[in-house]
Amino acid sequence: YMPVKQASLLSDELLTRAGRLSTASLHEASGKLGAIPCGIRPLNISMHMCGKALPVRCPAGDNLWLHHALEQSKPGDVLVVDVGDGIDFGYWGEIMATAALAKNLAGLVISGGVRDSLQLVELGLPTFSASVSMRGTLKNEQLDGAVGEPVRMGEIVIRHGDLVLGDCDGVVVLTPEQAEKGIPAAEHRDAAEVKILEQVRKGARVLDVYKL
Amino acid sequence: YMPVKQASLLSDELLTRAGRLSTASLHEASGKLGAIPCGIRPLNISMHMCGKALPVRCPAGDNLWLHHALEQSKPGDVLVVDVGDGIDFGYWGEIMATAALAKNLAGLVISGGVRDSLQLVELGLPTFSASVSMRGTLKNEQLDGAVGEPVRMGEIVIRHGDLVLGDCDGVVVLTPEQAEKGIPAAEHRDAAEVKILEQVRKGARVLDVYKL
Amino acid sequence: YMPVKQASLLSDELLTRAGRLSTASLHEASGKLGAIPCGIRPLNISMHMCGKALPVRCPAGDNLWLHHALEQSKPGDVLVVDVGDGIDFGYWGEIMATAALAKNLAGLVISGGVRDSLQLVELGLPTFSASVSMRGTLKNEQLDGAVGEPVRMGEIVIRHGDLVLGDCDGVVVLTPEQAEKGIPAAEHRDAAEVKILEQVRKGARVLDVYKL
Amino acid sequence: YMPVKQASLLSDELLTRAGRLSTASLHEASGKLGAIPCGIRPLNISMHMCGKALPVRCPAGDNLWLHHALEQSKPGDVLVVDVGDGIDFGYWGEIMATAALAKNLAGLVISGGVRDSLQLVELGLPTFSASVSMRGTLKNEQLDGAVGEPVRMGEIVIRHGDLVLGDCDGVVVLTPEQAEKGIPAAEHRDAAEVKILEQVRKGARVLDVYKL
Amino acid sequence: YMPVKQASLLSDELLTRAGRLSTASLHEASGKLGAIPCGIRPLNISMHMCGKALPVRCPAGDNLWLHHALEQSKPGDVLVVDVGDGIDFGYWGEIMATAALAKNLAGLVISGGVRDSLQLVELGLPTFSASVSMRGTLKNEQLDGAVGEPVRMGEIVIRHGDLVLGDCDGVVVLTPEQAEKGIPAAEHRDAAEVKILEQVRKGARVLDVYKL
Amino acid sequence: YMPVKQASLLSDELLTRAGRLSTASLHEASGKLGAIPCGIRPLNISMHMCGKALPVRCPAGDNLWLHHALEQSKPGDVLVVDVGDGIDFGYWGEIMATAALAKNLAGLVISGGVRDSLQLVELGLPTFSASVSMRGTLKNEQLDGAVGEPVRMGEIVIRHGDLVLGDCDGVVVLTPEQAEKGIPAAEHRDAAEVKILEQVRKGARVLDVYKL
Repeated sequence: YMPVKQASLLSDELLTRAGRLSTASLHEASGKLGAIPCGIRPLNISMHMCGKALPVRCPAGDNLWLHHALEQSKPGDVLVVDVGDGIDFGYWGEIMATAALAKNLAGLVISGGVRDSLQLVELGLPTFSASVSMRGTLKNEQLDGAVGEPVRMGEIVIRHGDLVLGDCDGVVVLTPEQAEKGIPAAEHRDAAEVKILEQVRKGARVLDVYKL
Repeated sequence: YMPVKQASLLSDELLTRAGRLSTASLHEASGKLGAIPCGIRPLNISMHMCGKALPVRCPAGDNLWLHHALEQSKPGDVLVVDVGDGIDFGYWGEIMATAALAKNLAGLVISGGVRDSLQLVELGLPTFSASVSMRGTLKNEQLDGAVGEPVRMGEIVIRHGDLVLGDCDGVVVLTPEQAEKGIPAAEHRDAAEVKILEQVRKGARVLDVYKL
Repeated sequence: YMPVKQASLLSDELLTRAGRLSTASLHEASGKLGAIPCGIRPLNISMHMCGKALPVRCPAGDNLWLHHALEQSKPGDVLVVDVGDGIDFGYWGEIMATAALAKNLAGLVISGGVRDSLQLVELGLPTFSASVSMRGTLKNEQLDGAVGEPVRMGEIVIRHGDLVLGDCDGVVVLTPEQAEKGIPAAEHRDAAEVKILEQVRKGARVLDVYKL
Repeated sequence: YMPVKQASLLSDELLTRAGRLSTASLHEASGKLGAIPCGIRPLNISMHMCGKALPVRCPAGDNLWLHHALEQSKPGDVLVVDVGDGIDFGYWGEIMATAALAKNLAGLVISGGVRDSLQLVELGLPTFSASVSMRGTLKNEQLDGAVGEPVRMGEIVIRHGDLVLGDCDGVVVLTPEQAEKGIPAAEHRDAAEVKILEQVRKGARVLDVYKL
Repeated sequence: YMPVKQASLLSDELLTRAGRLSTASLHEASGKLGAIPCGIRPLNISMHMCGKALPVRCPAGDNLWLHHALEQSKPGDVLVVDVGDGIDFGYWGEIMATAALAKNLAGLVISGGVRDSLQLVELGLPTFSASVSMRGTLKNEQLDGAVGEPVRMGEIVIRHGDLVLGDCDGVVVLTPEQAEKGIPAAEHRDAAEVKILEQVRKGARVLDVYKL
Repeated sequence: YMPVKQASLLSDELLTRAGRLSTASLHEASGKLGAIPCGIRPLNISMHMCGKALPVRCPAGDNLWLHHALEQSKPGDVLVVDVGDGIDFGYWGEIMATAALAKNLAGLVISGGVRDSLQLVELGLPTFSASVSMRGTLKNEQLDGAVGEPVRMGEIVIRHGDLVLGDCDGVVVLTPEQAEKGIPAAEHRDAAEVKILEQVRKGARVLDVYKL
């Protein structure tokens, strides 16, 4: 399999600042970019995740390439896994989550299912999936997968080194360039919202506050 | 936009009594009326809501009319929002929920998505939605929406001033006429159920209890 | 209605051992058998269920045969209920769950909906359903249902006396023959996993551990 | 595999009369019974089929039991095939349709897919399926199927010897008892409709004609 | 039931000109307005329809209000029928289509199903529906429907007197104001396309022709 | 945008032989490889297509990259277009099909919609799409697409130069290596089927013929 390219332009400082934002705020402030389809949800509403994307493409019902990805991943990476239309399989479970925590990964985003879901919640690694399924996968070396190549979820293309932010509202992915503009804009938006919330709590009309 | 008609025939006393009922009981006792499609779910299983409907029609991906609705709403109103097939957008978030609480609204029912979902759960305003989505909306004054006109969800038409009751099982909407008959019938049904539950706990056969 | 056949070959000892397993483990170790479609989920992620199947076939929107099934059920039975395409109805609620607990049933699996969902969570009877719906059902004696005859969910046929195991990842059903082989295999797999988890926590590569 | 029971109470004369009816008419006149879910459609809008049901249950992605069914079928039978949730496979193609025509079967109804669809249209055997798919099936003798046992499609249970009628509007299945009442009622309804159509063509108001 | 308002601002001359356009052209030239969701399809790919909307709201599974609409309709009207989520019913069939032809209606658009589909194709009245279903409907005077009030399909609101155009690509609905601007724009676009097609047939690069 | 890599290993002779096969036969004989999800259907059941894949990735609702692909395509190419989850748009119509015919392309496969569908059928270029939609697209140079990079449909990855075969049963895609083995195997299978069909027409039992 192909070696992972050296990424990325996203500085640690920006990553730290992104980690304080909500997905809704970053998505909105970056010009409505990067929202992964809303069917991909956190296992638990309080999960919060921020890291750099390591894209993975798994054949339907086969998780061998996830094992390769674990090998190649670095601390702070988020595995972003495209499984095609093989949604109802459990590609990821307790052992892999334990390995991911041992490597200090930042989380998992998968267009398919996970299993051992109760243990995954307890382990606490932020996990965003399209389903929960006990159905086991193969590890077939003949099948065609990839680590580090771009994948697509809905209308968003995810590349190695992109910013991945996840919370109660889903997952947003930005390129380093988009993140560089979006993060300060979101910080500005959040500061403004604190003031708006204060006014609204005191009874101000939202239409006035927004000047509509 | 059109001014909201003066509603409604539903007395405060009936509304208070309705607030003690479950949706399953009121729906059943009123002759199986008013069940909103089961895809519209509470953000949190313990949410309970009772109020008068203020119907809102939003263009897909635009929440300007929700702001107009907030303006026109009265304490105890439930905003019942039809977004057509623009389901995967976050029409409602922390600021609007804060405004709704400041105005003592009773809750929100929406055929689309909401965002800031963790904060919405913490704020506690009863919120029933078809999805959670970070995707932001527009505020386009050219687009065609409405406040106070009837909307439709599934096979139920919701009119200004209708009774709206929501809990763990979903949302039921009744006209004032239906509510006037349904509320006493549900109270009667609930009283009977208490006795049935007692008998069943003691081991009575359900078929005997129901005389089937 | 037809009397229930005397079942089954599954010993109490095996049933007890199965109750200590996870669905993912039993499914995997039995050769990827018996996974019920992933749309059927526990009401609460911590529910765990183990028992013998009593299959029930209900006409869409009618729960009379569930009452017959309650009658005929024995302690430790799991009602496994096929409702055809009548998914959006609440076939089961507080009274029936109370009756099931009084009879020491082990749980409910239903391809349709349940209601009184908050009370069902509080009562604690393991409940796995395709939806939550307040919509009430009929009890029409003319309609065609069955208790004890095989039913089908997805690609799995469920027969009277089959092993039914449910947890956070869904429901798995095995014939007594499959269970006899699958349970020891799963115990063996679980013991191996404990060691693998230890190694992985210490930083071993998962690919090495699995010898891939 | 189990031998097929001797069926059925449906006389040849009734079957011939049923063959002159439309599904809409027979369904309506029999009291709205027996409509198979509308996702199962004829390959060609002009296909018309009438015969006795031979129910078949295939494991997902396996058509061995269809071969057994062909063996056991009699002239005038309609194979009614339940494939669980394995919809996207081609269980039936040119060779099997040729064999079915050689045995004078009346048609095929399948909750999954067929392939060689253009040839199937040319061969002309009435074929009603949920999809068209080239994906091939297995013939695994270990898997669990059945010929002659009841199957379920949507809310309709289909038994060996039931009447199966199919046309441009889909498929209706009635038990011999339901058919005995429904066929004369539909004939009566059709005769009345001829007169109504005449009146309506001349400009009569439909509300008057129906006395609404 | 409420009497139909006197409509509309759309001149006969504009209607005639609209009838020469394709839906794709009118939709595009009017600024991407009015496209009804793509699940509503013509019964036959060669159907072409142009008229004024008479909106109808039917309760799920009940077609009484369609009979009222037939009564109130005028030559050139298109019945645009919202059936909520009761899609799998046959609200319209041979008799109603015959009556519609006798009254010179221009066609039918329905978010549910029709039956007698082969006869409907032969009768030739342009018919656009979400499904074909034999399942019959009720005529219950207690249920809540409407003729002439606005209905909604997807994100489009359809009002009495709106322009309705349908062809192989689906249905587009414009208000008279939108139509007044859109029709000349589409005529202009079509004239330009004739020239573009000529150039492209001769081998011109599309990017050059469009000046991209 | 990136220049298209020089492809491919597939000889003209193999391509000609593939053009005589059916998708069902090639898919089956190649070991059940390459079946594109069954929702992608020919506009017309008699369409037949064979060529080399030129993969295209379009942003949802934007067809600029299809124009670039037309530019870069060679005679015999099939455009295989991934549109993410922007299914309900008409990315392709009469002008583009005319340009494709002028360049002797072999066909179009798209995971989204096309428009001018009646004209597309008349023009005759083999067209396989997931929907028909009049909704127009943008040509936004800021958005992120690709020509020549691998795309994914369901569980199949499509690369530049792969064999693409389409007919009444859908679309199959094979790598040159898979095609080299699959084409002769399918030819062998077809020859055997001719003999089987003869035997079956004469009344041979299919189980005997297949030696099951």
